[in-house]
Amino acid sequence: MQFSDLVRDQNGWETRSTTTHFADDHLAVVTESVQTPAQAEPKRWTTVRRKAAVVIAAMTGEKKFLLVRQERIPIRAAIWEMPAGQIDDAGAIEETVRRELREETGYELAADGELMPLGHYFSSPGFTDEHGYFFLARGVERVGASEDSILECRAFSAAELRDMIAQNEIRDANTLSMCARLAARGLFSFGAKE
Amino acid sequence: MQFSDLVRDQNGWETRSTTTHFADDHLAVVTESVQTPAQAEPKRWTTVRRKAAVVIAAMTGEKKFLLVRQERIPIRAAIWEMPAGQIDDAGAIEETVRRELREETGYELAADGELMPLGHYFSSPGFTDEHGYFFLARGVERVGASEDSILECRAFSAAELRDMIAQNEIRDANTLSMCARLAARGLFSFGAKE
Repeated sequence: MQFSDLVRDQNGWETRSTTTHFADDHLAVVTESVQTPAQAEPKRWTTVRRKAAVVIAAMTGEKKFLLVRQERIPIRAAIWEMPAGQIDDAGAIEETVRRELREETGYELAADGELMPLGHYFSSPGFTDEHGYFFLARGVERVGASEDSILECRAFSAAELRDMIAQNEIRDANTLSMCARLAARGLFSFGAKE
Repeated sequence: MQFSDLVRDQNGWETRSTTTHFADDHLAVVTESVQTPAQAEPKRWTTVRRKAAVVIAAMTGEKKFLLVRQERIPIRAAIWEMPAGQIDDAGAIEETVRRELREETGYELAADGELMPLGHYFSSPGFTDEHGYFFLARGVERVGASEDSILECRAFSAAELRDMIAQNEIRDANTLSMCARLAARGLFSFGAKE
């Protein structure tokens, strides 16, 4: 697992050494000695490296957003989330968006739909380089079923999303962070009426 | 590192076996065989276990929010974030809030201030059990300096935060997710004027 374009040595950052403790297809645990711009001496730090991901706000013609409910083994719970998935080929981010949207929701971008990139975010920058690229898929339509790992897929209004966030029902970083980015860009309203 | 109260076997979840690949004071990498409520057979999954954390929206008397800028070695960048920190003693969450607030910002809750819990969230539930407890510290005042690892601490208006989120300058899950939770509860407005 390598550095991404986004996470790399530049502007005073310099990796002096790397020791790998564990690695499989999904993550690597490394302890590095890193010279930072602000510290006098290199600092040792343990990082979990992960592939980057895409996170998708899929908006239907009725301006509802698709959420999928799936079992998440690390937290021993099934939760409602926006569709998302890891990027296997760094040059194929938009293809990943389209594939994950289709697989997780059974929806595709309509002929007059639009895919809008909305920047990125880091899920837990104190311990992992994992980051997610946000996309708004405006204008999606149902073409089939979700893949088997998805328990349920449903479209929710902005007001329903807002209430689920307030009540701690939506509680994953992907969905919460996406809603913040959308709202800051004027693409989602936390003040929406039912 | 043990399960927390929040993440544990219950309601049809059952851990059949656990193999630890790596563990230090900050994280453990385990592969588990887990029976889930929806799957017929137990599933093998690799999880990174981490301590839970607190995330603090610290609001000044002028209704500005404190952000701290710090170097994050895993992502090779210094970013603006809300103050946060890991919980060492699961019974002492509010003490952790007060300590991290004081250490990272140099502020404390004022005599007429209020600490409001706002639920929790998971930073990346596909691979880690890490979760953060949200707190609004309403009414904080400066009593000293930030600790050395903090490059800068400043108070930002809601409109400034909104613009920093829109421009991808705020890009960590803690701060983005907190703003979504606050807005859903009517405690932050993405429509704020300067």
